[in-house]
Amino acid sequence: MTLETLYSLIDKKKDEFIARLAKAVAIPSVSADVNLRPKVYEMADFVVDEFTKLGAKMEKRDIGSHEMEGQEVPLPPIVLGQYGSDPSKKTVLIYNHFDVQPASVSDGWSTDPFKLEVDSKDRMIARGVTDDKGPLIGWISAVQAYQECGLDFPVNLLMCFEGMEEYGSEGLDDLIRAEAQKYFAKADCVCISDTYWLGTKKPVLTYGLRGVSYFSMTVQGPGADLHSGVFGGTVHEPMTDLIAVMSSLVKPNGEILIPGIMDQVAKLTSEEDSLYDTIDYEMSDLENAAGADVSIYPDTKRTLQHRWRYPTLSLHGIEGAFSGSGAKTVIPAKVNGKFSIRTVPDMEPETVRELVQNHVEKVFSSLGSKNKLTFHALHAGAWWSSSPKHWHYDVGSRATERVFGVKPDFVREGGSIPVTVTFEHALNRNVLLLPMGRGDDGAHSINEKLDLDNFMKGIKLFCTYVHELSLEKQ
Amino acid sequence: MTLETLYSLIDKKKDEFIARLAKAVAIPSVSADVNLRPKVYEMADFVVDEFTKLGAKMEKRDIGSHEMEGQEVPLPPIVLGQYGSDPSKKTVLIYNHFDVQPASVSDGWSTDPFKLEVDSKDRMIARGVTDDKGPLIGWISAVQAYQECGLDFPVNLLMCFEGMEEYGSEGLDDLIRAEAQKYFAKADCVCISDTYWLGTKKPVLTYGLRGVSYFSMTVQGPGADLHSGVFGGTVHEPMTDLIAVMSSLVKPNGEILIPGIMDQVAKLTSEEDSLYDTIDYEMSDLENAAGADVSIYPDTKRTLQHRWRYPTLSLHGIEGAFSGSGAKTVIPAKVNGKFSIRTVPDMEPETVRELVQNHVEKVFSSLGSKNKLTFHALHAGAWWSSSPKHWHYDVGSRATERVFGVKPDFVREGGSIPVTVTFEHALNRNVLLLPMGRGDDGAHSINEKLDLDNFMKGIKLFCTYVHELSLEKQ
Repeated sequence: MTLETLYSLIDKKKDEFIARLAKAVAIPSVSADVNLRPKVYEMADFVVDEFTKLGAKMEKRDIGSHEMEGQEVPLPPIVLGQYGSDPSKKTVLIYNHFDVQPASVSDGWSTDPFKLEVDSKDRMIARGVTDDKGPLIGWISAVQAYQECGLDFPVNLLMCFEGMEEYGSEGLDDLIRAEAQKYFAKADCVCISDTYWLGTKKPVLTYGLRGVSYFSMTVQGPGADLHSGVFGGTVHEPMTDLIAVMSSLVKPNGEILIPGIMDQVAKLTSEEDSLYDTIDYEMSDLENAAGADVSIYPDTKRTLQHRWRYPTLSLHGIEGAFSGSGAKTVIPAKVNGKFSIRTVPDMEPETVRELVQNHVEKVFSSLGSKNKLTFHALHAGAWWSSSPKHWHYDVGSRATERVFGVKPDFVREGGSIPVTVTFEHALNRNVLLLPMGRGDDGAHSINEKLDLDNFMKGIKLFCTYVHELSLEKQ
Repeated sequence: MTLETLYSLIDKKKDEFIARLAKAVAIPSVSADVNLRPKVYEMADFVVDEFTKLGAKMEKRDIGSHEMEGQEVPLPPIVLGQYGSDPSKKTVLIYNHFDVQPASVSDGWSTDPFKLEVDSKDRMIARGVTDDKGPLIGWISAVQAYQECGLDFPVNLLMCFEGMEEYGSEGLDDLIRAEAQKYFAKADCVCISDTYWLGTKKPVLTYGLRGVSYFSMTVQGPGADLHSGVFGGTVHEPMTDLIAVMSSLVKPNGEILIPGIMDQVAKLTSEEDSLYDTIDYEMSDLENAAGADVSIYPDTKRTLQHRWRYPTLSLHGIEGAFSGSGAKTVIPAKVNGKFSIRTVPDMEPETVRELVQNHVEKVFSSLGSKNKLTFHALHAGAWWSSSPKHWHYDVGSRATERVFGVKPDFVREGGSIPVTVTFEHALNRNVLLLPMGRGDDGAHSINEKLDLDNFMKGIKLFCTYVHELSLEKQ
């Protein structure tokens, strides 16, 4: 009865909940863009205000500043919060992030990325709508739903929201470790909504994540960009060197060419291998999400294994080379190639960095160029792996089945949420990854979306999750 | 006496001449940028106005439109002009271009690229100041100087100025061929000021140029940019494919890896080889111009040969990949790699295109990727080679010696001015390349400059050249 009352109220509040999400995405809180940093601060205030209005005790923790493009910039505060402190109730710590990936119309968005549009298929489109503002607004809406139904919130909430997730989560780990036995001491478990369903139809719970180690390398030589007619053929060109090094990292079939990287990967046992046989996933899901048949493997098993339990290396781009339209005959003086490796059990971030740096410097050195290469390890987040058999996953499973009428698949994810492993280690508590969005939401890409149905059911899921949590005997 | 009068007046007019050049560079006539195309039209009007004020008969020739980034855009008009038509005088056809390379402060300019600044070393800094607005304003100033001295201009001038030189000179060749026996029929010779001294101290005359063939290749697959966590390892990534193909084009030591390209290059005879022994050039000139010691060859002879008489391949950049600052974990869906080959005797542009396209398509095909590659030949300009022994070069040599007190070196250039070969073939007249700027001017790069001394002596050189031309018995 309790849940039916909540579900009915949530349905009535649809327009209000969407409007709140629209307000949130209208704040372009891009953490990687130094010029938009004030918008990340603004977004922290937005979150504080919304929860404060609902009676939560919120605070902004100043975590200092960092250097960005040659200037010292304040880090966005970490927002901590507490809603309820009844010692007879379970306490769950929720984490979300309020920053987003960069986005601009010139990247190819169909609409203004910072204006929420609902299309004819009831998809809400905007940067951050699924990653991770939808789930964050979902929690605000869930608390409001209990209040407006006149129902007691069944658990105590602790909150930890950050504004640097898309740019290395600087300062977060330190804060979590410092507060593990203080602010977060009463947490019985941790719930993070920052992952996605595997496909588009069936809900999932996520029990594993890849890590990510992001690198860049700068090659520079000439004092300024040069005319390729005047200098071409007589000087070492930074782009030629950089392209040679970048081409030595990964094969077009995805095989990583850096010696030692694959040696660190946990061997696939036949037991683990068999887990992949039953997951509800079709190759067409990948094709639809990618927008074309560009799959490397013809079957879902190898596809999912390479998404979840093998590392991969992606070349993201080059800063400093000619990137506009048209035909510019320039020899760029300084180019910065960017790439990252998704890491898996049992890779060690520091070993990965060392192997990558050694390889890059060795390859560059073999080119015999007079240009200079500088290697940068920009950030590293560790992989994480939990167990689907934990009671907390059982709670998540019951809640999901109640809302969606179907048991969730237990899956892993190819993406990275470094905070997951930090929470687990620092608090020694189980972390549940409880997704709201679908596998084709396009987080980090143009036209990022969140289906309205997932948003609404997601709010119901959060309400049901805390309800089930309060009933759990563990 | 005539020349001394002119020189003295030119010195007095310095500020006025600089002001005119400042006006010209303030118009950002970037032909490669569709958004700045109106500024190219504006620059055409500027040239027409300036020469009309001096009594020249000017006209703008409409040469139609072309497609650019999916839209049909009018081409800048070609400006034709006539100053004097005395049948007893020689007639020289002068060519310059009024468009410029792209430039923006974000590329690293120390000053606004479209505002002329004179620095403490008397260098005028702005986009186009040496390439090619300085020489163009130089001709206007030379005509004005004769008038203000009350001196009869010693030759008839025919003029041909274009606004598409930095973007393939579309439409120019057709117009020159069509007007060769009409508008240009009376030309005795052609003079082009769009090259540079070899070094920084000694004037030169240029008797050879490399050609340029500009290519790009698009690799695309996914329907939109993808999250590298979610898709990395399971899909063919366009960047990985593109980098693999780009790395197959040229070695870091400059060696072109495309089969067949080097077979087309005229063999170096021992006679030609010995010409390089006496040219006034130091390795430090290259280092100073490049801003660092990034030379491939340790000696000037091989350096100049690879600049003038061997082809080279430069990788300019990638459109569509992540090119901003920060760390974006994106798999770009569509990337466009750009490169060009500087061509030399006896390479045929069509053969070059065929060899490059075959190579690129073969390498891409060997990758086994499901992405699609599209090859584009953007434009091709032929190499050109004349003789230092022609009477016209003798005229140029005498004029140069008169202004600078030293005989010029006879050199070639690594850059391309496709119109040179068109004029020579269509008009069957000798073309003289008479430079104004120095080898370290940084055409096409940031902080492009023209030394004030070169500008002022350049105006004197043009005045002296037409004077010497009128005395020539040929």
